[in-house]
Amino acid sequence: MLRLILADAELETIPENMRNDYTIKKMASKFHKDPSLMILDSNYMHTSIDKYFPGKSTRRGRPDIVYIFLQMAMESILNKNGLLEIYVHTRNNLVISINPQVNLPKSYNRFIGLMEDLFKKKVINNNDKVLLSIKSQNLIDFLESLDGESILMSPKGKETSIHDIVQKRDINVIIGGFSEGDFLTDLYKYFESYSIFGQELTIWSVGMEIISEYERFIKIV
Amino acid sequence: MLRLILADAELETIPENMRNDYTIKKMASKFHKDPSLMILDSNYMHTSIDKYFPGKSTRRGRPDIVYIFLQMAMESILNKNGLLEIYVHTRNNLVISINPQVNLPKSYNRFIGLMEDLFKKKVINNNDKVLLSIKSQNLIDFLESLDGESILMSPKGKETSIHDIVQKRDINVIIGGFSEGDFLTDLYKYFESYSIFGQELTIWSVGMEIISEYERFIKIV
Repeated sequence: MLRLILADAELETIPENMRNDYTIKKMASKFHKDPSLMILDSNYMHTSIDKYFPGKSTRRGRPDIVYIFLQMAMESILNKNGLLEIYVHTRNNLVISINPQVNLPKSYNRFIGLMEDLFKKKVINNNDKVLLSIKSQNLIDFLESLDGESILMSPKGKETSIHDIVQKRDINVIIGGFSEGDFLTDLYKYFESYSIFGQELTIWSVGMEIISEYERFIKIV
Repeated sequence: MLRLILADAELETIPENMRNDYTIKKMASKFHKDPSLMILDSNYMHTSIDKYFPGKSTRRGRPDIVYIFLQMAMESILNKNGLLEIYVHTRNNLVISINPQVNLPKSYNRFIGLMEDLFKKKVINNNDKVLLSIKSQNLIDFLESLDGESILMSPKGKETSIHDIVQKRDINVIIGGFSEGDFLTDLYKYFESYSIFGQELTIWSVGMEIISEYERFIKIV
């Protein structure tokens, strides 16, 4: 089993100090939503983000990159073979578990709607099957609860070929769920870190390389 | 060089017979746009699509899948090494050429805005560099103008391992730019077709397998 963990992902509802912002309240009322239940999205809210978190509008509120990562991973041949598990840990120490069989909405706006529903209800069911769930959990505790070895992908890590990284059947690969900067959690203290390319890559490019290498390692491709 | 060609992609502006539709006109006026310059998007216009093209609202108007495909491909290690070219041929025989160095918007709505701009202006420049261009061209003529061998990916093709498909440095791989059904152009008459998985895959999953195999074939990964 390959487990991919997005760590410190920039996926959150509108932070408390932003909820009374005029622009945010106007946006919320337009969509008949409560600001506390809306997903922070820098694509639409960058001015407000920079007002309350100066300089952070390119990092905070990035459900878009989580969405593309999940589309890439969930539709892969590896996942269709039942050999991939995906977890999204957020900056607020929430861990989202994704049923590998869930059919995520292809539309971005519907994906955001699903995330808002998940943050509100904590679990999304279809009949008696849990599709998505979210719970408070410390990242290190969560990672230590997983079977298999955990490793960290980071541009600051040891330059290693992807082939040498993926050499075990049971492996947990941690990828930063953000577009710039570094992990909020001090993961370097606990795990070996590796870099597979001389430049920064988007989170889905890292995920794609891990998945396709693992598919070859276990010989399903 | 690997060339990926999305063929018969469901990317188009609002078709002529839909432009006077009440819902479409209302949507256009809300965004201060001319319906003839808006990209058809089944995520928002499925009711209107089904009214003018019965039963087609899941196939027509799918810029969303083109967007995810492009995000996956453009951000790949292969593209960052300058060894990937991507073309999008649409159902209306337009061919979009994408400068491998273009930084596509990560936001879906901004991507749609960029496509609307491209369909209107036919070319998007940055200083004297052409980032995107679109021109009328028959798909077969376009494919025959390319160097190297062209092959077709299709669930109806011969079941072949991805390793056996990617065995040349100069190769053009045609992937259907739609979510269901078959090619509009009779490509089977001209090209060998291959299937890499027993079930249908999303267009970006096929692209991801081709790219990652090619990266290994030319030993950059």
